[in-house]
Amino acid sequence: MRDILIIGAGRSASSLIEYLLEKSEKEQLHLVIADLSLELAQNKTNNHPNATPIALDIFNKNERRAAIEKASIVISMLPAHLHIEIAKDCLLFRKNLVTASYISDAMKALDAEVKQNGLIFMNEMGLDPGIDHMSAMKVIDEIREKGGKMLLFESFCGGLVAPESDTNLWNYKFTWAPRNVVLAGQGGVAKFIQEGTYKYIPYDSLFRRTEFLEVEGYGRFEAYSNRDSLKYRSIYGLDDILTLFRGTIRRVGFSKAWNMFVQLGMTDDSYVMEDSENMSYRQFINSFLPYHPTDSVEIKTRLILKIDPDDIMWDKLLELDLFNDKKIVGLKNATPAQILEKILNDSWKLQPDDKDMIVMYHKFGYEIDGEKVQMDSQMVCIGQDQTYTAMAKTVGLPVAMATLLILNGKITTPGVQLPIYKEVYLPVLKELEEYGVVFKEQMLPYLGYKYS
Amino acid sequence: MRDILIIGAGRSASSLIEYLLEKSEKEQLHLVIADLSLELAQNKTNNHPNATPIALDIFNKNERRAAIEKASIVISMLPAHLHIEIAKDCLLFRKNLVTASYISDAMKALDAEVKQNGLIFMNEMGLDPGIDHMSAMKVIDEIREKGGKMLLFESFCGGLVAPESDTNLWNYKFTWAPRNVVLAGQGGVAKFIQEGTYKYIPYDSLFRRTEFLEVEGYGRFEAYSNRDSLKYRSIYGLDDILTLFRGTIRRVGFSKAWNMFVQLGMTDDSYVMEDSENMSYRQFINSFLPYHPTDSVEIKTRLILKIDPDDIMWDKLLELDLFNDKKIVGLKNATPAQILEKILNDSWKLQPDDKDMIVMYHKFGYEIDGEKVQMDSQMVCIGQDQTYTAMAKTVGLPVAMATLLILNGKITTPGVQLPIYKEVYLPVLKELEEYGVVFKEQMLPYLGYKYS
Repeated sequence: MRDILIIGAGRSASSLIEYLLEKSEKEQLHLVIADLSLELAQNKTNNHPNATPIALDIFNKNERRAAIEKASIVISMLPAHLHIEIAKDCLLFRKNLVTASYISDAMKALDAEVKQNGLIFMNEMGLDPGIDHMSAMKVIDEIREKGGKMLLFESFCGGLVAPESDTNLWNYKFTWAPRNVVLAGQGGVAKFIQEGTYKYIPYDSLFRRTEFLEVEGYGRFEAYSNRDSLKYRSIYGLDDILTLFRGTIRRVGFSKAWNMFVQLGMTDDSYVMEDSENMSYRQFINSFLPYHPTDSVEIKTRLILKIDPDDIMWDKLLELDLFNDKKIVGLKNATPAQILEKILNDSWKLQPDDKDMIVMYHKFGYEIDGEKVQMDSQMVCIGQDQTYTAMAKTVGLPVAMATLLILNGKITTPGVQLPIYKEVYLPVLKELEEYGVVFKEQMLPYLGYKYS
Repeated sequence: MRDILIIGAGRSASSLIEYLLEKSEKEQLHLVIADLSLELAQNKTNNHPNATPIALDIFNKNERRAAIEKASIVISMLPAHLHIEIAKDCLLFRKNLVTASYISDAMKALDAEVKQNGLIFMNEMGLDPGIDHMSAMKVIDEIREKGGKMLLFESFCGGLVAPESDTNLWNYKFTWAPRNVVLAGQGGVAKFIQEGTYKYIPYDSLFRRTEFLEVEGYGRFEAYSNRDSLKYRSIYGLDDILTLFRGTIRRVGFSKAWNMFVQLGMTDDSYVMEDSENMSYRQFINSFLPYHPTDSVEIKTRLILKIDPDDIMWDKLLELDLFNDKKIVGLKNATPAQILEKILNDSWKLQPDDKDMIVMYHKFGYEIDGEKVQMDSQMVCIGQDQTYTAMAKTVGLPVAMATLLILNGKITTPGVQLPIYKEVYLPVLKELEEYGVVFKEQMLPYLGYKYS
């Protein structure tokens, strides 16, 4: 039996564990599922004979090292900043490692040593980052092999609610870390390149500068710009590309409505509000409005945001119960962003029967034989239930597949890696199709960059 | 003779030096004017027999200490962050110190030691901070002595261009550090209290939430909120006050137009733009606009900012020559804010014959004998020329006066101080009147907080 140590048994580990347990007989696998909470680890093993749940405090060096020393390969599903100690122990005991997180500077710094030891530390092996890299590089490599020259690459991804569970005016529920949704777009300007010109969008215009996407069978979506559009320019070998853009997908109308929070200052995470604990929802919104002796909070909100009474924007605010003076925030020393997250969670929490949905959309523009063409590639994945969500599936399955490919000697390039090479993306994308993660490709005339 | 060491002979030192030289015979003063540039120091002494210019590198400890040891009292007109080493040397040689800067944490930390040595380190002794403290505390103390209870205090100040030199559509020129003007309002939310309710304005709404002020003989002004409205609440003894607001004064229409830069992202100082050195002004503005194959930069600007062709906002942009594709930025690795500063400086630089203007406006609301009343207090000061500007006068004269009062034993309270006590504000405000710095007071019915 080959021991796979999985550290972190949270939400994103369910499909990963299910996949590996399913293969455990045939592939001779034994899973050690480690979590700070033994109960959580036990839940995920479901008494499977080839799995052992253990309690592991990763800050306990001896415990951590003992577990890693015994493993054949290690998967870390912990939050990104917690990988590094595990990675160092993997070096110490010469174990391969797989994560779904962005490569941190600390992780990158291990590259030479990892190579010297002939090890593979495969990162960014989830959905985004992960499936986005693989599905993009597959097409880009194909275009290059045909002799094409890349002109444009736009890539969009979003974690949304499935159509059958889409029951609110925002067409959105929290299917992933709510805090990241509230803080989206903060911490730096959105920078990208369009037809050879660098473009910059400040935070307060970010949600007003959206693009629109049509996905067959699912209707229209919109996307706002990510901050990191140029991050993979060199890694993908696109240094000369004219247009490079990455965005986050939402249903049409979300961004315009979200921008109301931005305008009011409700997404700010940089300061603590006075007496946040005892503040009502109504007092929260009133904190961002001018004082008036008689005008209501409602009328002041409408005035400052320029909302007509028959505007759907107004209904979206009402739906969140923002003007309720009985509902109390109840969070000590909270920032506006923390309070907003709590208010949104009342309305946007996934319900037991709700399903989530992942949408990914790439546009590849290129020149071949003197002609400009475009290829669009779309993937939609719907969750099964609240455990086997589309997010858990698309994050966990690639991790599991890469782990097995490394164990079986099919992925061999040593170093601190991300999945941009054929030996990774070809087998993983192919196998993902069996699990319903399918990219539909469509050839189009070259449209170039379209601003709407 | 008593030696006054003045460190820093820049713009704000001119009126200060003129005042002290004028008094030098009668008061037996000898000024040592120290600057990194001997020439600058010489210019300011103007061969006066009671002044000695010296070259001083304040980072040279021996030079610095030698100069301080010889002085009877020290004035530091350096940028705020450079005071601390001078302050420590003043402690070492037991010298009093006067500055026009905000009390830094490092300066505050010296308080106990300064008191033990019976010394006075008088800070915030310029215009704002300085004259604002003194003129406010004089009225607040008078109200309290009459048995009144403070309900509202709003305080506004602005450095502007004098009406006779007001020659552009923005009604504004740079009369002080341009960089601070470009970055105004950044680095934290604007927080204040209105009728007992804490209010918060995010940066992107700051220039749209203005108040209006009428100054007799000078017409209408507007003010946007400062970040630090609550900073002096306890220091002024106003912990229970219902309304406390501080703002920056501009001519009406400035803020609405400035907000165009904020919306576009041109005031951002957090990142460097690609190839800023070779960028034209036109390329600069185009960086913040969406790509379009045929639409002009002008039409894209109008569209995104929703500017009609007959809107004065449009003329304001044209006046700055922002769409010029021949004018080159010429700054290496520059942030948007640095580039904007350069572009504005083309249009907003004070011309040799231009005069500046300081406007200060306080509103005091209080209850006395069961009645609510309001008193407004206004001060306008016009500069003489480009050397003896209103700014140099209002910053430098209070520093000079306080220095003489300390030397003559009229100000006696030891410690790291700011001018909120009678022994400081009474003589200084009285003497400032002789120099044309006069507050006009007017009793009004209580208006309370007015949002417009």
